Amino acid sequence: MNISDIRAADARLAGRKRVTPLLSSPFLDEIAERPVLVKAECLQHTGSFKFRGAWSAISALPEGTGGVLAFSSGNHAQGVAMAARMRGLPAVIVMPADAPRLKLENTAALGAEVVTYDRETEDRDEIGSCLADMRGLSLVKPFDNPDVIAGQGTCGLEIAYQAKEAGVTEATVLTCCGGGGLTSGIALALEADAPGMKVRPVEPEGFDDVCRSLKAGEIRSNPTMAGSICDAIVTPRPGDLTFPIMHRLCGPGLAIPDEDARRAMALAFVRLKLVLEPGGAAALAAALFHGNDLNDGPVICTASGGNVDPGVFRAALDRYPEG
Amino acid sequence: MNISDIRAADARLAGRKRVTPLLSSPFLDEIAERPVLVKAECLQHTGSFKFRGAWSAISALPEGTGGVLAFSSGNHAQGVAMAARMRGLPAVIVMPADAPRLKLENTAALGAEVVTYDRETEDRDEIGSCLADMRGLSLVKPFDNPDVIAGQGTCGLEIAYQAKEAGVTEATVLTCCGGGGLTSGIALALEADAPGMKVRPVEPEGFDDVCRSLKAGEIRSNPTMAGSICDAIVTPRPGDLTFPIMHRLCGPGLAIPDEDARRAMALAFVRLKLVLEPGGAAALAAALFHGNDLNDGPVICTASGGNVDPGVFRAALDRYPEG
Repeated sequence: MNISDIRAADARLAGRKRVTPLLSSPFLDEIAERPVLVKAECLQHTGSFKFRGAWSAISALPEGTGGVLAFSSGNHAQGVAMAARMRGLPAVIVMPADAPRLKLENTAALGAEVVTYDRETEDRDEIGSCLADMRGLSLVKPFDNPDVIAGQGTCGLEIAYQAKEAGVTEATVLTCCGGGGLTSGIALALEADAPGMKVRPVEPEGFDDVCRSLKAGEIRSNPTMAGSICDAIVTPRPGDLTFPIMHRLCGPGLAIPDEDARRAMALAFVRLKLVLEPGGAAALAAALFHGNDLNDGPVICTASGGNVDPGVFRAALDRYPEG
Repeated sequence: MNISDIRAADARLAGRKRVTPLLSSPFLDEIAERPVLVKAECLQHTGSFKFRGAWSAISALPEGTGGVLAFSSGNHAQGVAMAARMRGLPAVIVMPADAPRLKLENTAALGAEVVTYDRETEDRDEIGSCLADMRGLSLVKPFDNPDVIAGQGTCGLEIAYQAKEAGVTEATVLTCCGGGGLTSGIALALEADAPGMKVRPVEPEGFDDVCRSLKAGEIRSNPTMAGSICDAIVTPRPGDLTFPIMHRLCGPGLAIPDEDARRAMALAFVRLKLVLEPGGAAALAAALFHGNDLNDGPVICTASGGNVDPGVFRAALDRYPEG
């Protein structure tokens, strides 16, 4: 994988993706004691960056493809559903039956066929491969797929361009990091277009598989998947494709407590007028509250998604009514 | 006033304003039963379109100006404070002593000197003109000032360009309307750059001075100023400069109940990941819930501001948790 894959994905995404704005607030700069730029990917189609990778992968499928298949209970599901609809392909999304009702409904409303399974008694992969065989569907993985990584990388091309317009060419770029699709894609894009920038992944404390993998120089897994409010960026382990890219290009990872994500959500509400989900606020939390762990100079954070339950959002505002 | 004033303001604003995105969601299109495009001015500096007019006016002041003065308890105050700071001029903002503490603090934090007065016992205009004379300050009115109108009109230039990119050249453009600065500025811009678009102002029910003025063909006032949650767009009457422009160019006004603004806020949260204040959601409310009063075809709404009290926002989410 290299920058030409990302440029090719960018060409496929032209006129499809939203070029999301790079925002800032003097109030956030003051808290962080440095310039903070926020890449508002929550404003991407379906409320997260996932649409980029989904369209990149789905638009690259050969003619005659029978449709697409994805496993996801979250943002990837909606991104794939919308991208498939844009290409006029059927999409089957395999989701756990106990996923939040709104996410099931939204995915279906975007035109996908939602197939649910029982997490306790059924084998997700078996259901998926059975459906794929029967109907000739192509699997779109959430991060360990070159076209998906290339699609997420288009976010990095925009960061390089927009930051330069704002006069910033050297910066720490903090990414909300799950399996590493967004992080590795951005890192590849910045290596080419903004070599003065260094990407550092941000994860929830206790679910810092990428942090630990980068430190160890080999893939480490999370002992458990449950227990963080930052669910969108909790994954079992980094991907086989994403990890080598991150290992080559990314600085040490950072881990933030859930409480910092909550306060970053409240600050994004008050100061940026953005709705962020906890996992989408992790990078901003690191920029605002973990400056001691960062090099001097400006910070750019991805605000990677906004698909938050209203109750979770209200709780953040209740706790931090002034941000 | 004409389009050349707006283009001149746009040149002054280049590199200063944010080009805010024009957003959409298939879920909103479905509710409205038509394409809905949302101009996210809540993402403008200081959280509302007011920065455009403020910088337009302040950047046009002659060299040697001693500073600027504004009367405002809301969005105009913050826009003027930030624009004055950008130009390196002192700003004095005269605000009622009982204005929300956060608004007083934010305005001060943006570098302005906040002078408070007692609404019951003191004369705001007397305080202002006294300060202006003593210190050589220039008054920046919130809407009835040609440079302010021209600045707000730059939002219209962006709408024309961005809508065309999205394939839309004929549309109803709904504006959240207070004194008419944004509405008249956008109308002038679209007359030149998107003549297939018709601007219609949206106001809160019971505070529809512009609606009634347009109908009567002459300026009408609101009987009272208190009682709507859409406080940002409640003004005593349209301006002497803005009204003739609106009368020449704008279609009939619309009035929406507060409850519709609340639900539009919740839908903007769920579907667009935007934080809107009630007055900034009025146009979206009209697009979503008052389609019977609109011509067929796409609708473009200004989402004009996001400076909302967290309690008011939470109340909207409580009432409409799924939008």
